Amino acid sequence: MTILDKIKRPTLLLDEMKCRKNIAFMASKARASKVNFRPHFKTHQSLTIGEWFREEGVSSITTSSVIMAKHFASDGWNDITIAFPLNPREAEDVNELSRKIRVNILASNSGHLELLKRIILNKTGCFVKINTGNNRSGTDWDDEEELVRIAQAFSGAEYLRMNGLLTHAGHAYKSSSKAEIIDVYNDTLQKLQAAKRVYPGDSGILTSGDTPSCSVVESFTGLDEIRPGNFVFYDLMQLQLGSCSRGQIAVAVACPVVEKNRKKREIIIYGGGVHLSKDSLKLPDGKNVFGQIVLVDESGWRFPDEDIYIRSVSQEHGIISAPGKFFDSVSPGDLIGVIPVHSCMTADLLREYHTFDGRVISDFSPK
Amino acid sequence: MTILDKIKRPTLLLDEMKCRKNIAFMASKARASKVNFRPHFKTHQSLTIGEWFREEGVSSITTSSVIMAKHFASDGWNDITIAFPLNPREAEDVNELSRKIRVNILASNSGHLELLKRIILNKTGCFVKINTGNNRSGTDWDDEEELVRIAQAFSGAEYLRMNGLLTHAGHAYKSSSKAEIIDVYNDTLQKLQAAKRVYPGDSGILTSGDTPSCSVVESFTGLDEIRPGNFVFYDLMQLQLGSCSRGQIAVAVACPVVEKNRKKREIIIYGGGVHLSKDSLKLPDGKNVFGQIVLVDESGWRFPDEDIYIRSVSQEHGIISAPGKFFDSVSPGDLIGVIPVHSCMTADLLREYHTFDGRVISDFSPK
Repeated sequence: MTILDKIKRPTLLLDEMKCRKNIAFMASKARASKVNFRPHFKTHQSLTIGEWFREEGVSSITTSSVIMAKHFASDGWNDITIAFPLNPREAEDVNELSRKIRVNILASNSGHLELLKRIILNKTGCFVKINTGNNRSGTDWDDEEELVRIAQAFSGAEYLRMNGLLTHAGHAYKSSSKAEIIDVYNDTLQKLQAAKRVYPGDSGILTSGDTPSCSVVESFTGLDEIRPGNFVFYDLMQLQLGSCSRGQIAVAVACPVVEKNRKKREIIIYGGGVHLSKDSLKLPDGKNVFGQIVLVDESGWRFPDEDIYIRSVSQEHGIISAPGKFFDSVSPGDLIGVIPVHSCMTADLLREYHTFDGRVISDFSPK
Repeated sequence: MTILDKIKRPTLLLDEMKCRKNIAFMASKARASKVNFRPHFKTHQSLTIGEWFREEGVSSITTSSVIMAKHFASDGWNDITIAFPLNPREAEDVNELSRKIRVNILASNSGHLELLKRIILNKTGCFVKINTGNNRSGTDWDDEEELVRIAQAFSGAEYLRMNGLLTHAGHAYKSSSKAEIIDVYNDTLQKLQAAKRVYPGDSGILTSGDTPSCSVVESFTGLDEIRPGNFVFYDLMQLQLGSCSRGQIAVAVACPVVEKNRKKREIIIYGGGVHLSKDSLKLPDGKNVFGQIVLVDESGWRFPDEDIYIRSVSQEHGIISAPGKFFDSVSPGDLIGVIPVHSCMTADLLREYHTFDGRVISDFSPK
């Protein structure tokens, strides 16, 4: 019985070789630019995959929650940045963690920092979150008065050490070409450097680095640290952005075909919003899609000659529009692969990786 | 320490009283119309909540997957319709289940039925899935030739018993008023009845009943069975459709406030796509939102004077636009409630209900 024969339900396939290559490539790129590599572990969330990073010399990581930091700390990771505005309700957890390992947290503004000073009661590194255009959180890069207030707040801090200025250029995801991604990267770097110049006293390191920028930019000179996460798997969104090639995408969801509609030339798969997520992307032709179809075999997957997409998902159903000859090549009971739009969300939903040599990796972070 | 004090992370709150009222109301509506009530359990997925249905006299249920059917069968449910085109890779599981309990499966068309005849090897009920306008799956209601072929296929079936014609009017969700929902319901009923007239021989029962229709329509005369699911909790989508009132919504996600941006009057909460899902809805003013804010206390939640929404979510962050006075009333560390856009997806992500008397219900179906 092959690994595909055993699959009954939507199953997250992981191509370990591609994943390890993605890790090795980003690690070597960071080394070439002499910046610290602090990969974001929120995409894979797995201890086993974390181990593959360790094998590439990684010793510092990023998580998106306190509970995820605890998960990786339990496996020996001892230098973790929790890249989320610190949630006061988890201050005790952070205090406990920082007794054992090096923890870095984020302060979003001077008011937030004053709060942190009251509730963080162990030596903890603290990054100032800078908004360089993503407009999600943090202090605006050009808000000189606020940067001065933050520096003043640090001067009276007993436990919080100013580590540096941190940003996330999430707006790189709105780019429509590699050139635009590079523009966002350069703009982000300039804004971080401008904030550094204004910040009174020692502003520590500059840390940035989303997957699109880190994949496309040649050199990270000017930064001190990069923190990409999604590159470990990549996905359809990154492919469309131009951050990766088809051959770099390391995850696909194996889904059973359950129905064919000859009139509409549509295929229904067992694989819906609870497996793939409801994240979608707009193709250049304006169509909204929820995943792209690949052909799976015992050793991996490949893209068919035609581009075939999931046109809609409900809780358990995915509907594939297959106007071409692909339609005739599949039958109910067959397995097809789906490259997810957003691998972070899909991995979080399925919480289990199946490799082509038959291993099941399920050491996921709780949430 | 109150139940809210214990909450550190995004937590799904369940108002048991509202939930039980929703169940009782729909059960009594089905009794009044003398139709069988076969609620869809894919929304709540929980054995405990299933028990609350039993207390209202429910003995037949619907699930969206074979694994969910097995989950409820393990708790004594013995009449289950698996409302999903049967996945051939789970035929063995269905055969095993039908040795113990009454199982009904779906055949989408004559080809699918021929396949089922080869792989279903125990007495199993079978509904013919009819497409009455949702255009997801099934045989078109007016495809007379196909209906005849299906009847012929049943005549030679050893194990499959023709149970009836089943439809799901998912397009009721595209309505913009109660009147439109009623139109979709009436149209669906007429199309099911037309298919019944064309179907040669005994076409069994007629079963339909999405939450919008079942909530809005007065009487189900003409149908034999209804299968709504979402009504157990309702959500923001149903509220916007007019299927429920604010007071009927039975779930909200408690989320810690983590940051405030005074310039933009935005509040950042710990509560993102991995908690709420990426399902969104468009408000009448064109804004896309990911949840509506409510005020939580020890006994429940209430809507504030202003309508306040989540304007965007990323993996762990939710960003609330709060131009009015609500902004000044909350601080980092406070808990606020979020009414989810789509409660089925949110429940599936959080997989644990917290009631206001301090119970935690986590007997969820695997997937």
